Amino acid sequence: MTEPALVMVNGFDGSRADDLPPAARELLRRREAALGGAYRLFYAQPAEFARGEGVYLYDSAGAAYLDAYNNVPSVGHSHPRVTEAVSRQLATLNTHTRYLTEGVVAYAERLLATHTVGPLAGGSPAHAMFTCTGSEAGDLALRIARQHTGGTGVIVTANAYHGVTAALAELSPSLGPNVPLGKDVRVVPAPAAGVNFTAAVAWAIADLERHGVRPAAFLADSLFSSDGVFPDPAGFLMPIVELVHAAGGLYIADEVQAGFGRTGTHLWGYQRHGIAPDIVTMGKPMGNGLPIAGLVARQDVLEDFGRKARYFNTFGGNPVCVAAASAVLDVLDAEGLPANSVSTGAYLKDSVTRIAAASTVLGAVRGAGLYIGVDVLDPETGSPSGDLASAIVNAMRERRVLISATGPRGSVLKIRPPLPFGRQHADQFLTALDDVIATLG
Amino acid sequence: MTEPALVMVNGFDGSRADDLPPAARELLRRREAALGGAYRLFYAQPAEFARGEGVYLYDSAGAAYLDAYNNVPSVGHSHPRVTEAVSRQLATLNTHTRYLTEGVVAYAERLLATHTVGPLAGGSPAHAMFTCTGSEAGDLALRIARQHTGGTGVIVTANAYHGVTAALAELSPSLGPNVPLGKDVRVVPAPAAGVNFTAAVAWAIADLERHGVRPAAFLADSLFSSDGVFPDPAGFLMPIVELVHAAGGLYIADEVQAGFGRTGTHLWGYQRHGIAPDIVTMGKPMGNGLPIAGLVARQDVLEDFGRKARYFNTFGGNPVCVAAASAVLDVLDAEGLPANSVSTGAYLKDSVTRIAAASTVLGAVRGAGLYIGVDVLDPETGSPSGDLASAIVNAMRERRVLISATGPRGSVLKIRPPLPFGRQHADQFLTALDDVIATLG
Repeated sequence: MTEPALVMVNGFDGSRADDLPPAARELLRRREAALGGAYRLFYAQPAEFARGEGVYLYDSAGAAYLDAYNNVPSVGHSHPRVTEAVSRQLATLNTHTRYLTEGVVAYAERLLATHTVGPLAGGSPAHAMFTCTGSEAGDLALRIARQHTGGTGVIVTANAYHGVTAALAELSPSLGPNVPLGKDVRVVPAPAAGVNFTAAVAWAIADLERHGVRPAAFLADSLFSSDGVFPDPAGFLMPIVELVHAAGGLYIADEVQAGFGRTGTHLWGYQRHGIAPDIVTMGKPMGNGLPIAGLVARQDVLEDFGRKARYFNTFGGNPVCVAAASAVLDVLDAEGLPANSVSTGAYLKDSVTRIAAASTVLGAVRGAGLYIGVDVLDPETGSPSGDLASAIVNAMRERRVLISATGPRGSVLKIRPPLPFGRQHADQFLTALDDVIATLG
Repeated sequence: MTEPALVMVNGFDGSRADDLPPAARELLRRREAALGGAYRLFYAQPAEFARGEGVYLYDSAGAAYLDAYNNVPSVGHSHPRVTEAVSRQLATLNTHTRYLTEGVVAYAERLLATHTVGPLAGGSPAHAMFTCTGSEAGDLALRIARQHTGGTGVIVTANAYHGVTAALAELSPSLGPNVPLGKDVRVVPAPAAGVNFTAAVAWAIADLERHGVRPAAFLADSLFSSDGVFPDPAGFLMPIVELVHAAGGLYIADEVQAGFGRTGTHLWGYQRHGIAPDIVTMGKPMGNGLPIAGLVARQDVLEDFGRKARYFNTFGGNPVCVAAASAVLDVLDAEGLPANSVSTGAYLKDSVTRIAAASTVLGAVRGAGLYIGVDVLDPETGSPSGDLASAIVNAMRERRVLISATGPRGSVLKIRPPLPFGRQHADQFLTALDDVIATLG
C-alpha cells in the first residue's frame, strides 16, 4: 500500500512518478512543465479518463470506473439533455446581462421559487445574482454581508472550505497553516458528536464583540463536508440563525455541496434544517459542469449593495450557462433524482453501516441522501486514521470505484456520486467496499 | 436626447421604463423582480437580442445590429468551430484537473509558447494556471504576488478596473467612491498626453515605502481601457517594469482587454510595449464566451505559492472550456484575425480621425488594432463630455450599431468589435457615425 499524500487528502505524491506506466509518466512530465505547482492530482496512481456517461467514467482502454465521487456532473456525466441545450444555445446566442435576455430572468424566477430565505415565515422577497464559480458567489456574499451589516467578523467551522479568492481563502481553514486566516475570522469546532455547537457559536460571537469586531456573518456548508460530513440531527442549525441575527450578523448558507437535490428530502441542505438563511450561495452541480454559480439573498440585504455598487460578471448568467442550468433543473425533475437520492442514499448508508459494524477499521457512518461520510479508525488505537482512509480510497480505485476522503485528518471516506446512482450502482460499490475492507480487517 | 446614466457609463435609467415598448417593459419588470439591484442594463433603451452571427446581433424581429462593442465573442458570435468543439467535448467528457487529461496540458503548452515573461531575455520559464473568469485570475495573481514579494502595496491607474472579487474591488477605482480602495493601494494618473507616467509610478512607489508598505505589484491593463484607451507610444511601459522590479515588486499585465490578438501586431498587449511581465492575466475572449480565464507566470514566482498552497478551481481548466479556448486559438490563426485587426483597425482609426477632424464634438482618436477610443468634447468649452458621448452611443444604437463609452467621465467612445470585423463592417460603422456626428456638429 502506498503512503498517504502529505500535502492534500488523497493527493498524488509527485516523487512517485517513476511507478507510473510510461504514457502517464510522459503526460505527467508535460503537465508539471506546463501547469503551476499548486495543482494536485488525485490518487497514488493518478486516474486518466477519456469518456464519461451517467455514473461511469472510462479510461482510454475502455475500462469503466464507477463514479461515487463527482458531484459536479450531478445529473450524470455527458447528460444528453444538457449537451443538447448548451449546443443549441451556443449556436444561437451567447451574450451578457447588460442586454435584456429572457433566459436568465426565467431561470432566476425558477430558482427563487425553490428557495426560502428569512426572516419572514414562508420566505421573504429574494433576488438572485449569478457568477461563474462558487468562489465568486461566496466572495460576493461576503462583500454584501459586510456592506449590509457594517461588520467584518465571520464565523466558520474548524476545517471549512469556502473558496479560493483572497477573501475566501482567509476564512477557509482547510487550506492549511500556510494560508493565514483573517484577523476578524473566528473558528468553531465542527458539529460532531459531543460538541455543543450552539454554545461554540455563541462563544465566537462574544469573542468577536469583546475584540470590538462587529459580526458580519456566520458561514457554513449545510453538510459540513470538509469537516467530515455532519448532517444530523436535522434542525441543529435553527438556534444558530437566532444567535447570529441577535448579534446583527447574517446567516450565509453555502449550498455548493448540499444543494440541487443532493440530500434528497429537500432541494437545499438548509431546508433540511428548517432554517431560512439571509444569503444562499450555490455552485458546483448548478450547470452539470458548465461554469455557473450564484446566490439568492433577501431583497433588503441586496438593496444597499445594489444602490452603492454596480456588479457585472462578464460570463455570469450568460445564456449558454443558463441553458445548462435550466436543463439541470429539468432533469432533476424529469428523472426524479432527489427521490433517488433519498432511496439510494438510504440503502447505501444502511449497507455501509452494516459493513462498518462488522469491521475494525470503519466507525460511524453519517450522511444525508447521496452524501455519505464514513469514519476510518486505526484498529489498534481506535483513533481516526488518514493513512487507512487513503489506503481504502486507493484500493477502491484499483477496483475501479472512485471515492475520496475528507475531514481535518483525511480520515473520513467521502462518498458523493452523481445523482442517477441507482441500486445496482450501490451494489457494485458495496461489493468493492466489502472486498477492500475484508483485506484490511 | 435622453440624459446620460448617473450610475454607470451608458447605463439604462430604470426610472425611464415607461418609455419602453410593452414587451420590453414586462421583461424589465420581471428582471427587476428576480435579479439584484446591482445589475445594470446598457442604453437609454435597453437592447434585446435573440441571435448572433459573426459581427451581428439580431433582435427578435430579425433586425441586424452591427456589433462594434463586444470583445468576448472575439472570433465572432456563434462561431461554428467553437460550437462544434464544445458540443463534441460536452458529449464526451467534462471533468476537472485532479484527473490527468491531455487537453488542458496541450492547451497550456500552446498558450505558454505565445507568451514572453521576464526577467530573462527571450523569456523565462513559465507556468499556466486556469480559472473561470478574469476576476479569479486577477485575484489569484494578487495572492501570488503578495506571497512571493512579502509585500502588500499595489499600484493601479486612476480609473482602473481589475475585477469584482473583494480583493480586486479594493484596487478598482472605477467602481466608484462607494467601493473604498484598500489602504495599501496607490493610484497614479492614466498615461494620457502630458502625464509623466514613469515619474508618477516612481512617486507612488516612494510613497508606499515611506509608509512602510512593501510594494507587491504594479497592475495595469496594457491598453488602459477603462481609463480612456491609452496605447501609445508603444514602449512607454518599459521603464515601469524596471522601477517596479527595483522596488521588489512584480509587474502584472492584465490582458483581459488587450489579449488574444486584439491589438493585432502582437497576440498580447504587453508585447507591443516590448516588455516581459512577471505575471499575465487573461480572460474575456479566451473561450469566445465560455467561462475560461487564467494566468501565466514566471515559474520561480509560482514556485513558492505552489509549495505553500494548493489551488483547485472546480471548473477551471475543464475539458469543455479548454475545447472552446483551443478552438479560439485555431480560428485566430486559420482566419488571420490578428492581421485583420491590424488592417481593419488602421482603416477604422484613420477614418474616424478624419470624421473627428471635421467635427466640433470629437477630439483625439487613440487605439491599437480593433480597440479604439475617441474623446468626445463639449463644443462650447472644449472639455470632455460624458453627456455627449452618451448621446452619440445611443444615437448609434438607434442606427443599429453597438458601441459604448469609457474613461472616468464616460466621455470616450469605446469601439471594440469582434475581430472578424472587416472593411465592409467598418464602412457601415463609419456611415452611421458620420450621420450621428452630422446631427450633433
